[in-house]
Amino acid sequence: MLLLIATAGWSSERWAERMRQRFPDRDIQIWPDRTDDLAEVDYVLAWKAPAEVMRACPNLKAIFSLGAGVDHLLCDPQMPEVPIVRVVDPDLTERMCEWVVFQVLLHHRQHLQYTAQQAARDWAPLPQPSAREVRVGILGLGVLGARAGQALAGLGFQVAGWARGLKAVDGVESFAGADELGAFLERTDILVNLLPLTPETRHLVDHALLSRLARDGALGGPVFINAGRGGSQVEADIARALGDGTLTGASLDVFETEPLPATSPLWDAPNLVISPHVAADSDPEALSLYIEEQIRSFEAGGGLRNVVDPAAGY
Amino acid sequence: MLLLIATAGWSSERWAERMRQRFPDRDIQIWPDRTDDLAEVDYVLAWKAPAEVMRACPNLKAIFSLGAGVDHLLCDPQMPEVPIVRVVDPDLTERMCEWVVFQVLLHHRQHLQYTAQQAARDWAPLPQPSAREVRVGILGLGVLGARAGQALAGLGFQVAGWARGLKAVDGVESFAGADELGAFLERTDILVNLLPLTPETRHLVDHALLSRLARDGALGGPVFINAGRGGSQVEADIARALGDGTLTGASLDVFETEPLPATSPLWDAPNLVISPHVAADSDPEALSLYIEEQIRSFEAGGGLRNVVDPAAGY
Ligand SMILES: NC(=O)c1ccc[n+]([C@@H]2O[C@H](COP(=O)([O-])OP(=O)(O)OC[C@H]3O[C@@H](n4cnc5c(N)ncnc54)[C@H](OP(=O)(O)O)[C@@H]3O)[C@@H](O)[C@H]2O)c1
Ligand SMILES: NC(=O)c1ccc[n+]([C@@H]2O[C@H](COP(=O)([O-])OP(=O)(O)OC[C@H]3O[C@@H](n4cnc5c(N)ncnc54)[C@H](OP(=O)(O)O)[C@@H]3O)[C@@H](O)[C@H]2O)c1
Repeated sequence: MLLLIATAGWSSERWAERMRQRFPDRDIQIWPDRTDDLAEVDYVLAWKAPAEVMRACPNLKAIFSLGAGVDHLLCDPQMPEVPIVRVVDPDLTERMCEWVVFQVLLHHRQHLQYTAQQAARDWAPLPQPSAREVRVGILGLGVLGARAGQALAGLGFQVAGWARGLKAVDGVESFAGADELGAFLERTDILVNLLPLTPETRHLVDHALLSRLARDGALGGPVFINAGRGGSQVEADIARALGDGTLTGASLDVFETEPLPATSPLWDAPNLVISPHVAADSDPEALSLYIEEQIRSFEAGGGLRNVVDPAAGY
Repeated sequence: MLLLIATAGWSSERWAERMRQRFPDRDIQIWPDRTDDLAEVDYVLAWKAPAEVMRACPNLKAIFSLGAGVDHLLCDPQMPEVPIVRVVDPDLTERMCEWVVFQVLLHHRQHLQYTAQQAARDWAPLPQPSAREVRVGILGLGVLGARAGQALAGLGFQVAGWARGLKAVDGVESFAGADELGAFLERTDILVNLLPLTPETRHLVDHALLSRLARDGALGGPVFINAGRGGSQVEADIARALGDGTLTGASLDVFETEPLPATSPLWDAPNLVISPHVAADSDPEALSLYIEEQIRSFEAGGGLRNVVDPAAGY
C-alpha cells in the first residue's frame, strides 16, 4: 500500500507531507529517495517524472498528474498503460479564469500604451472601444476555456471557442474541428490558447495562423494570449508577428522551454507581457484532497474521474 | 424650443451634431457661440460650464449633465434651481466595470512586480493567493459600485460596499454610514472609490483613512483604486502612503487637478498606475439617445429620471 511522489523541478516534500496527513496508515515515499521495493507501489503522484519510474512499479494501479496538463507524462511513449488521472479543481479553474480575464482586459484597456505614456508624464486619453465591440476567441473549450469564456462574456465581450467537438457554453459561440478553424480565426481580435499540448496542437500557433486573425477589429490589430502550453506556439513566429505588426500585443505564461532561456527573442519583443508559468497553480491542499477522494472511491469499487484518453493525448 | 450645449474642455460640436439628428425641428446651439436670445433655451446639456450660462436662461426647464458625476455643476452655488439630470447608461456602467475589474486584477495578480522582473529577464514565480482570499471594499454602492462589486464577487473576491444606506447587492456585504466605515476599512485589502464628489466625500481618502485598511491580508498590504473623483483623495497623502508602505499599490484614474500637473508628486510614486480619466467614457451615441428619451417623456408629461438631489450633492 504505497504512494510514490515523483516530481522533477518541484519540491516533493510538501506533497508527501499532505498525503501522509490524508493517509496516515500508508507508506508514502518520495522518488528518487525510495527506488527499491517498487512492487508495493499502488499509485504514483507525478509531475514531469520519467516513464522508467512508473515502469519500475509492476503493480501500479493509477498515475495522478499533479498538473491539469498531462503532456509531461504522455510525451513519453514508454508510459505504462494504467489510468492517468488529471487535475480538475475549481480553485485552479478560478485562478486560470482570473489570469485570462486580466490579460484580456490589459490589452483591451490599452495598458501597455498607458504605461509608456505614464513613464513619459504624458496625459493622453485614447479612444476606447467597449467590450461589446471586441471579439475574443478561445482555442480549447474544455474546463478552463469554458469558464474563462463565460466570465469574458459576462463582461460583455463577444466570445467564441474552438474545440474538437461543438460545445454548449452560455454566451460562447462554438466552432469545431479543422474545418471551422478559419472562420473562428477570422472573427477573432483577441486569441486565447487553452488547448492541451498533444501531437495535434504542437506548434499550432505559428505566423501563418496568427496572420488569419481579424484585422478590422476595434483594437486596431490582433492579440495573442497563451496559458495552455508553450509547445503549442512557435516562439520565433510570435516574436516576428509582434515585430511586423501581425500582432499588436501578446501575453505568454507558458514557453517551449521553461524557465524561458535568456537567449529567447521573446525578451526583446515589443508589447509582450511575460509571466513565469503562474496563471493557475495547483493548490496542494485542494489537490491532495482531490487525490484522496479519488483513491478512496476507486478502492471502494467506484471509478476514477478525469481519466485521460491516451489516444487523444489529453 | 432651444437646446444649448455648454461644455468646457470638451468639443461641443460632436454633441450638437447628434442632438440635431435627434431633434431635426429644433434649434440646437453651442455656447459661447450663441449668447443672445437665451430666453428661448429650454434645456442645457452641460459639462463643466459656468453657472452664469445656466442663470442667463430665464426659461430653463432642466440641465442634463454630460457625465455621470454632477460635481462639475453642483460645486457652483449659483446654479439655478431646475432639475439636474445625470447620466445613467449601461454602456458607461459596463466600461467602469471593465476598468475596476482590470485594476483589481492587476494588483491581485502582482503585475507591477512581474513587469519589473520581466524587464530584468528574471523568471521568478511569486506565491499567489486566490481571489477567495482577497477582500475588496467599494466606497459608494450606487449604479457603478454595485455593478463592479457584482462582477468582482463573480470572480471569487470577498466584496463589501459602503454607502449612506444599506444596500442589497448579490454577493456584496453592505456597510452604511460613518458608524460602519471603520469596520468596512478594517476588513478591506483592496479599496475602490466610486463615490460622487460632494462636500462630505471631499478629501475623504487621506493618510489616516488609508492607515485603517487591513494589514493582515493575503496580498501583503493594502491597495487603493480611485475611479470616482480626484477631489475625494488627498494626493500628497497617497504619494506618502505609497512611499511609507501604508499602501503597497494604487491605481488612479481621477485627480484633484486634471490633466495631472507635471509637478505632482504622484508621477514619482512607486507602484502607482495612472490613467488619464478614461475609466468610463460617455458614449455620445448612447447618451444622446438617453437625453432624447428623457426630453420626449418630460414633454409628454412624464417625469425626468435620475434627477440629482441638490441637498445630497449627487
Ligand atoms: N498555465 C498554467 O498555469 C496552466 C494551468 C493549468 C492548465 N494549463 C493548460 O491548460 C490546458 C487545458 O486544460 P483543461 O482543463 O481546460 O483541459 P480539457 O478540459 O481537457 O479541455 C481541452 C480542450 O481542448 C480541446 N482540444 C484538444 N485537442 C484539440 C484539437 N486537436 N483540436 C481542437 N480542440 C482540441 C478539447 O476539445 P474536445 O473537448 O472537443 O475534445 C477541449 O475543449 C491543460 O492541458 C494545460 O496544458 C495551464
Ligand atoms: N472615472 C470615470 O471615468 C467616471 C465615469 C463615470 C462616473 N464617475 C464617478 O463615479 C461616481 C459614482 O457614479 P454612480 O453612477 O455609481 O453614482 P450613484 O448611483 O449616485 O451612487 C453613489 C453612491 O455613493 C454613495 N454615497 C454618496 N455620498 C455618500 C456619503 N457621504 N457617504 C457614504 N456613501 C455615499 C451613495 O450612497 P446612498 O445610495 O446610500 O445614498 C451611492 O451608493 C460619479 O459621481 C462620478 O463622480 C467616474
